[in-house]
Amino acid sequence: MGASAKTVQGLARWLERCNAREAVIKELVPFTITGHDKPLGYMLPSFAEVLLGYQDVFQSGQAAGSKTVTLHPQLRGFEERTAAVDRVLVELQGKGVVNGWRGERYPVLSSFHSPPLLALERAAAVSFGIKAYGVHINGFVRMPDGALEMWVATRSRTKPTWPGRLDQMVAGGQPVGISCEDNVKKECWEEAGVPRELAAQAEPVGAVSYAAMQSAGLKRDVLFCYDLELPLDFTPTPQDDEVESFERWPMARLIEEVAHGDRFKDNCNLVIIDFFFRHGLVAPDTPGYLELLTGLRGGDCC
Amino acid sequence: MGASAKTVQGLARWLERCNAREAVIKELVPFTITGHDKPLGYMLPSFAEVLLGYQDVFQSGQAAGSKTVTLHPQLRGFEERTAAVDRVLVELQGKGVVNGWRGERYPVLSSFHSPPLLALERAAAVSFGIKAYGVHINGFVRMPDGALEMWVATRSRTKPTWPGRLDQMVAGGQPVGISCEDNVKKECWEEAGVPRELAAQAEPVGAVSYAAMQSAGLKRDVLFCYDLELPLDFTPTPQDDEVESFERWPMARLIEEVAHGDRFKDNCNLVIIDFFFRHGLVAPDTPGYLELLTGLRGGDCC
Repeated sequence: MGASAKTVQGLARWLERCNAREAVIKELVPFTITGHDKPLGYMLPSFAEVLLGYQDVFQSGQAAGSKTVTLHPQLRGFEERTAAVDRVLVELQGKGVVNGWRGERYPVLSSFHSPPLLALERAAAVSFGIKAYGVHINGFVRMPDGALEMWVATRSRTKPTWPGRLDQMVAGGQPVGISCEDNVKKECWEEAGVPRELAAQAEPVGAVSYAAMQSAGLKRDVLFCYDLELPLDFTPTPQDDEVESFERWPMARLIEEVAHGDRFKDNCNLVIIDFFFRHGLVAPDTPGYLELLTGLRGGDCC
Repeated sequence: MGASAKTVQGLARWLERCNAREAVIKELVPFTITGHDKPLGYMLPSFAEVLLGYQDVFQSGQAAGSKTVTLHPQLRGFEERTAAVDRVLVELQGKGVVNGWRGERYPVLSSFHSPPLLALERAAAVSFGIKAYGVHINGFVRMPDGALEMWVATRSRTKPTWPGRLDQMVAGGQPVGISCEDNVKKECWEEAGVPRELAAQAEPVGAVSYAAMQSAGLKRDVLFCYDLELPLDFTPTPQDDEVESFERWPMARLIEEVAHGDRFKDNCNLVIIDFFFRHGLVAPDTPGYLELLTGLRGGDCC
């Protein structure tokens, strides 16, 4: 019953690929805001140096015996901080330090429901190493014999990030100013043409988290997972240019790909493994079960 | 959509009730075995003193600057350790130090699939503060309108532990020498009269963990959770004397009880909250969502 030990080992590759070692994270420079004891981000020393070139916005600080980058304490309140940091980021974009401007802002906060301290252009989230949030929707069908099949998206070849890789049916970042529920409905329509009333049936089923080292910095994500059981005769249709095509996969193919392939965008594998756990496709009698389960929240998940 | 913030607050009571504070755990004496760096248990100083009265089996040690109780290094191998500790526990039972002898042994190990270093009478698991494992089965039905109802057990009034409290339809400790899968089938039959072929449909769906302070010591549990969807016309029937009666509860009643009542055996609340998460009854837009989710694994979960 459930996946084999070899399969569980294969699935566990994604825990390592999606999570930087603690020793690596310790070499990063914490990003802090005076009055908030927990670091809000972790940045490469080189990026920290660049920010410290803007002394009216960023200052060097100390916390727990190590160097930090802290926002100038005279910047107070969400609006003032957001505007000041944005001015710097626009300059850095001009200099080619920040790339892939999205025109979409992520909140900077210590936990998801705490008040955002500022908002930050999405393209700079990894450079600052702030926690970012997203919604990932598993679109699946239940076959007449009870077996599950998953709708898998192939990302557009023209996307700046992960072109051509496999993805959840629907997934999106969680920007400021929209609820997860509305974001799910919005993304379901834009990416897969799921009508609002059908998208409303998406069930929130938990979250995964990770902290992955990338060339720009530390990507720290919390992904809210949703299950959306679709009618057998529904076919997702892209309404924007994010997805190239959709295909329905039986579980055996999905398990094989996630355990031994690498065609899915890295973080999507964690969402699928979480799906496997919740639907009985991995079982406690298999070695590595608990390590894989708990590893799905390898990043700060609050 | 999903439970209210007040409900989530109510559910979060169980995280605190089921988990001792770190400062309290720090006052306990680690139980170690030479050659294994991680403590296998944590005991009250008074119980440690009692064990150190048996110098041929237990010795005083040091690890990370604090006092430990360690097994005599001349005791080697599973059989020898198990027999030696058992001799002491039988004496302690005679002296009234160990109560509620079960005649069932729990493995002592650093993680679930690592080789057991010894086996310990279940009645002494909390005194040693070893991790123990169990299987908890959510027996539920899907009503014609799609709504879920949960079978809730009332524990027998004559049970030594938690008499008369509410419980999962089926739950049991995970002793040495039986797989989780077989244990689920065995317990399903004994506690609820679920036939083997129906019990085989129970889906493993994850695990919760906690470390709770009790009068005898630290109860550290990892509970493997299962969902078993039952036919509408199936009624569980106790085959042993563990359960007094079964009743089917709509989700609204279950949420109300777990959020604001205290009739369920403490750890069962965690299993039910995990069920709420997996079935979309709590949603990310509600404050406290991620803290409640991650708190469900408040104990060492490996």
